[in-house]
Amino acid sequence: MARWEPGARERLVVAAVDLFIEQGYDATTVAQIAERAGVTKSTFFRHFPDKRELLVAGQETLSRLLTEGIAEAPADATPLEAVAAGLTRASTAMGPESRELAPRLKAAVAASAELQERDALKSVGLAAAMTTALVARGVPDPTAALASELGVLAFKRGYAEWSEGDHDAEEGVAGYILRALDELRVASASLG
Amino acid sequence: MARWEPGARERLVVAAVDLFIEQGYDATTVAQIAERAGVTKSTFFRHFPDKRELLVAGQETLSRLLTEGIAEAPADATPLEAVAAGLTRASTAMGPESRELAPRLKAAVAASAELQERDALKSVGLAAAMTTALVARGVPDPTAALASELGVLAFKRGYAEWSEGDHDAEEGVAGYILRALDELRVASASLG
Repeated sequence: MARWEPGARERLVVAAVDLFIEQGYDATTVAQIAERAGVTKSTFFRHFPDKRELLVAGQETLSRLLTEGIAEAPADATPLEAVAAGLTRASTAMGPESRELAPRLKAAVAASAELQERDALKSVGLAAAMTTALVARGVPDPTAALASELGVLAFKRGYAEWSEGDHDAEEGVAGYILRALDELRVASASLG
Repeated sequence: MARWEPGARERLVVAAVDLFIEQGYDATTVAQIAERAGVTKSTFFRHFPDKRELLVAGQETLSRLLTEGIAEAPADATPLEAVAAGLTRASTAMGPESRELAPRLKAAVAASAELQERDALKSVGLAAAMTTALVARGVPDPTAALASELGVLAFKRGYAEWSEGDHDAEEGVAGYILRALDELRVASASLG
């Protein structure tokens, strides 16, 4: 029986990010990440298929929460109101530990072309999940695709501002993301 | 002195896409691509740093054309009119040979997680190039980012429709992309 390891997943993510920054993504092995996190390689592989997936591990959870939030928005919600409901739900997955990790995660991604690519695909996946959920609500196709792109932009912008901002402030990421979405809504009127 | 090789670059792209579909991306080597294209490995490396970059080789050209088109749009152009000018300029890089290759390229990307990631990063790069060009025109930040996302969406949607559509029709890709952009402009009024 494997020993129960509280927080092994989180420790692996933190260890990986630190090693990626210290010595580069390419030079870092799964064995090193496991050692730094104080777990076995087997434990690593119970949580992640490889070192790259570790950095986008939250993607499936985010997609599921976005989809649920959009599906459960009131029937008379506009497309952007439904997106806002999805983003609010997804924000529950990002607590203080996400915020603390964010600047180091950003540095690790900035230093690795491979991680940038994986990160870009994550955005595409989140947009696709939102589009599918909006279409299921009856939002017509071009509007659904557009509302999803606004959602992804708002997510990125709000998350960045939250993680770079004043960490003494108690406000969660949801407020930042919803403000970013509203800014984009206002900006959409000045596209011409 | 190397022999002058007309169309070596295009032949390499076609050979690579065919091999990726026939035997998979991972199993395909640079040597095989060069052989299929009838060129040496040295010639391959004069054109591309590796097999993956080959499929996004047009990205720099597209970014440059988008940027130029946006910069040279009339001073009184709206953000979306400037984006349309950039997309029109970028469309000149996509002729009949792009159209012929498109379905096979799509199949190759669909079959490879690595190529999907590289492709996703290409979209991010094109959006960033457009945003920078719009900001240089004085378009404020959230509007510039949003207009760029509409541009990328229009590019993808128009390109897909063009490459999947009736190949007897003589219409170039620009018309498809500009119609897609206009659909998105109209859709932006119904976001709520």
